[in-house]
Amino acid sequence: MFKIKTNRDEVFEAHGKSILEVLQENKIYLPSSCGGKGICGRCKIKVLEGKVKTESSFGIKEAEKKEGYVLACKSYPEEDLLVELPFNLIAISERIAKAREELVERIFSENPHFFNPLVKRLNLNVKPPTIEDSRADFDRIIHTAGSKLKITPKEAAILSEFLREKNWNINLAIAPDEEEIISFMEPQEAIYGLALDIGTTTVVASLINMDKGKIIDVASCYNSQIIYGDDVITRIIYALENQKGIEILRKSIIDDINALINTLLLRNKMGQILYVIISGNTTMCHLFWGLNPKYIRQEPYVPVINHYPLWRASDGKINLKSNIPVYTMPSVAGYVGGDIVAGVIASGIYKEEEVCLFIDIGTNGEIVIGNKDWLITASTSAGPCFEGSGISCGMRATEGALEAFYYDPKRDTFEIKVIGDIPPLGICGSGMIDIVSELFKAGIIDKKGKILTNTSKHIVVEDDVKFHITENCYITQADIDNIIRAKAAIYAGISTALIEVGITEAEIAKVYIAGGFGEFLDLKKAIEIGMLPKLNSEKYYFLGNTSLSGSILCLLSKNFRDKAEEIAEGMTYIDLSRSKTFMDEYISALFIPHTDVNRFKVS
Amino acid sequence: MFKIKTNRDEVFEAHGKSILEVLQENKIYLPSSCGGKGICGRCKIKVLEGKVKTESSFGIKEAEKKEGYVLACKSYPEEDLLVELPFNLIAISERIAKAREELVERIFSENPHFFNPLVKRLNLNVKPPTIEDSRADFDRIIHTAGSKLKITPKEAAILSEFLREKNWNINLAIAPDEEEIISFMEPQEAIYGLALDIGTTTVVASLINMDKGKIIDVASCYNSQIIYGDDVITRIIYALENQKGIEILRKSIIDDINALINTLLLRNKMGQILYVIISGNTTMCHLFWGLNPKYIRQEPYVPVINHYPLWRASDGKINLKSNIPVYTMPSVAGYVGGDIVAGVIASGIYKEEEVCLFIDIGTNGEIVIGNKDWLITASTSAGPCFEGSGISCGMRATEGALEAFYYDPKRDTFEIKVIGDIPPLGICGSGMIDIVSELFKAGIIDKKGKILTNTSKHIVVEDDVKFHITENCYITQADIDNIIRAKAAIYAGISTALIEVGITEAEIAKVYIAGGFGEFLDLKKAIEIGMLPKLNSEKYYFLGNTSLSGSILCLLSKNFRDKAEEIAEGMTYIDLSRSKTFMDEYISALFIPHTDVNRFKVS
Repeated sequence: MFKIKTNRDEVFEAHGKSILEVLQENKIYLPSSCGGKGICGRCKIKVLEGKVKTESSFGIKEAEKKEGYVLACKSYPEEDLLVELPFNLIAISERIAKAREELVERIFSENPHFFNPLVKRLNLNVKPPTIEDSRADFDRIIHTAGSKLKITPKEAAILSEFLREKNWNINLAIAPDEEEIISFMEPQEAIYGLALDIGTTTVVASLINMDKGKIIDVASCYNSQIIYGDDVITRIIYALENQKGIEILRKSIIDDINALINTLLLRNKMGQILYVIISGNTTMCHLFWGLNPKYIRQEPYVPVINHYPLWRASDGKINLKSNIPVYTMPSVAGYVGGDIVAGVIASGIYKEEEVCLFIDIGTNGEIVIGNKDWLITASTSAGPCFEGSGISCGMRATEGALEAFYYDPKRDTFEIKVIGDIPPLGICGSGMIDIVSELFKAGIIDKKGKILTNTSKHIVVEDDVKFHITENCYITQADIDNIIRAKAAIYAGISTALIEVGITEAEIAKVYIAGGFGEFLDLKKAIEIGMLPKLNSEKYYFLGNTSLSGSILCLLSKNFRDKAEEIAEGMTYIDLSRSKTFMDEYISALFIPHTDVNRFKVS
Repeated sequence: MFKIKTNRDEVFEAHGKSILEVLQENKIYLPSSCGGKGICGRCKIKVLEGKVKTESSFGIKEAEKKEGYVLACKSYPEEDLLVELPFNLIAISERIAKAREELVERIFSENPHFFNPLVKRLNLNVKPPTIEDSRADFDRIIHTAGSKLKITPKEAAILSEFLREKNWNINLAIAPDEEEIISFMEPQEAIYGLALDIGTTTVVASLINMDKGKIIDVASCYNSQIIYGDDVITRIIYALENQKGIEILRKSIIDDINALINTLLLRNKMGQILYVIISGNTTMCHLFWGLNPKYIRQEPYVPVINHYPLWRASDGKINLKSNIPVYTMPSVAGYVGGDIVAGVIASGIYKEEEVCLFIDIGTNGEIVIGNKDWLITASTSAGPCFEGSGISCGMRATEGALEAFYYDPKRDTFEIKVIGDIPPLGICGSGMIDIVSELFKAGIIDKKGKILTNTSKHIVVEDDVKFHITENCYITQADIDNIIRAKAAIYAGISTALIEVGITEAEIAKVYIAGGFGEFLDLKKAIEIGMLPKLNSEKYYFLGNTSLSGSILCLLSKNFRDKAEEIAEGMTYIDLSRSKTFMDEYISALFIPHTDVNRFKVS
């Protein structure tokens, strides 16, 4: 039995497993988007001492190999090892988790009577049968519970022994809304639920203790569908133009989710999850359930379903007990999905007195404007760049990501901030905005975003013009063009929606920014490049991943779930794709900050 | 391609299939309890001309082989054949079907507003989407239907194309009570349901056109669980004492049912069944669903469930679309099952003004006494003899069964009546009663049922004393003892139940006799041997298989289904197994007709 020691002096036993598996078992979660298949190259780790057997070195450069880098998922100890963990994984995930926990806690402390989970514990003291009262076991439970409950044949098959083993004092997990027994429970066993944010680029799974309303753990990975297309349109095309295309995409995301569930269950040493909520854009939810996305892409952009029935784990081929309910956050339209409805719930915009703006910046940029009386929504395609995809050195806002950039034009030098305080592995969304903003202010790029090649020693002209931060971390002209198109789409979406409802930027009371991206965003710079409206910074609130936090809220509250259905039904959708105003606004926004500089003038 | 010609001058093409399959395809249904596996020996057929390849001759005697008998299920034509059909199969099944049809028709003509099937057709003219109204496809259907409907992911996956192919004018099969879309329909397609009577000995499946309320077809077979035990007690013991015993019994009955479904679908050239009702005794229903029958056998005889949730075809592993609802007729107690509740529905006893008696004679004998104000029920174990099991030459009341017997004591000769007018293949329940009655009246057997060996030339004494009808068809002393125990159990059950409620035989206004058995019963003789109370024959009504007809009524009527739940909940169960009165009554009834001859005196 070999041991794996880390540079933090932890020691783990390997039991013949891969380094990745051993670390996962010990709550150290290396980045991995392929789920340990050795095909994403993201779980590389430096072996300082000891021999390993390596089955794949995908994505590791020759020089790195010489330094001792291996793929953790495909490397097995052949003697005791000392490994260097790439960065402080625990700290960062705790920071993100803490912020989300605080959001959920705050909302339930503001609405305490809303705490009303979709699965509850029911303790029953059932009267044992006698000759005089020989009703059936299940019928006695119904009678004791005082309400009609359904049971599956699988649970019914073990009910009689369960009742007698527990001496007629039993604990059940029930879904009150569906009047169903979900599972038999041990007295001390907690009820767990799962909230799933299915993004076009990223999938995040959060494990929730439903008794206490606590977030227990979070795991995430890239959406493996990425190899079939970067955005929803290319995915829909793939689904339709390939034989079994829908099924391939469905299986792809389900494999991701099953891997995340596995990780969460292993890491928290627990057995069952009793309720699942999924939240995602309309196309992601369609592909999750194997629904045909064809008509989302064709005018008038009609989904198969906006308000989903409550389906089951077995319907979705999720690796949980077959009867586990899977609730799908309702969509508004083909391009405004359940993730945005979750965002409306998490932001609370639906109960504001004044007009507020909600923006979720992911692969799509969705906008909601309104208050307690009305809500309108629109969607604009930002592309995946702010999530780290489609940009030369793009990466998610995780450890190793350049998240901030300060340029000193006098000395042609810069300072950077990298998550985890290590050399940059890549650039995340907030870093991209910083770079564009700083380089623009320094005159290194012009209003159109063109790099002026004679302005800095960091510029290298090869096949493309690049601005280098380190040897391996840089931004290219094509990247900057991409970022400008993305920021233009977001700004034009906001301004068009405001025009449609006849509201000026100044009339907006609050701006809620959602998206994993938002957590690291430098607001001032996002305004400087013309991505967000120029408003006082006190008006801006950063909410993080509201698709996830909104679905956590719904998992813990029938009231929020009902509210979500109501919001999805009542919101007015504005189709920007046919809007002449949008096209004008978009073209005007393809400048830094905008052709109409007055909009971004210091007041 | 070989042809099979019958002695009725029909000609069928064989297409490489077995004789059994070819005949089944052509609506000729040979008896077969093993579903064509070559292990029950019941589908034997005489080949008059032509050669066959035979894979098994299980149960066929050497002499029969020489005559040309083969197992139809395991015999394949090697040239054109001429076969002799054993008897007139069509006529008899039409006769039984006609009686049942008339019962169902009569009940709905008496209660026309009760015709309210569990699945209905819904024709919707859905407004196509526009840019101004781009709601989701499914949400449009809900809106058009004006009611909340659920849909499965499988149906949802094909919904969009279905809507567009049908140009937005669609037909759905919906279960109104469950608010569910069960299936998409073609405009001219009929809605079919299936009623299943799961007896301890016999399984009967009836195909119903739910649009018209018509019985389309019936198929039946022995319950293959018979090899694991003749009655419910031995089955429960098997289930508990063998590893995977419950699963073995479950699979056994499900295989029978899937074979019957197959036969019905093939024979009627149709594709889908959209609703299933099962009716059976408590143990049969438990084993169908894989529930643990352990506590049915232990005092106080508690089932797992009496009132079943609506489960699905996939839960029961029935070979139908996975979402097809399977409703289980509710039970009253461990020994009074849904078959009896179905019988109460079919007999109408629950709405009678005067006190009536209902008796279902199968492997168990269940008794119901009461009227519109009250109903009590009890169960007594008759054993399977009247269904043709456990008797040397016993068989079901199908073609070839000796169903009537008249003895001439002067000449020591007899006349017999055989179903299908062919030489007797065996003796069915009514034949057994006739034989015991006639031999008793002639003094060939005494009050205790003992054969007096010197009284007839038809008596042969070998290992047992036998009375021969033909060389291969006879009744033994052990058979007669068995029949007397069975009739005693039935009579004692009736008399004990009457004593319990303080009603005399004379106070009974009507007696309803149920059971496949009842269709051929000679009432006079059943009274003569002391099986049924001595009442005017006008008081007796023969209803046939009410487990089947009652479940057909429930399939066609939500009102009857609701009534069934109400009846099962409200009936009082009398446990005869602990009753001293029953034991006394039983012992007194072990004579022909009874120790208290006054009870059977001609009035």
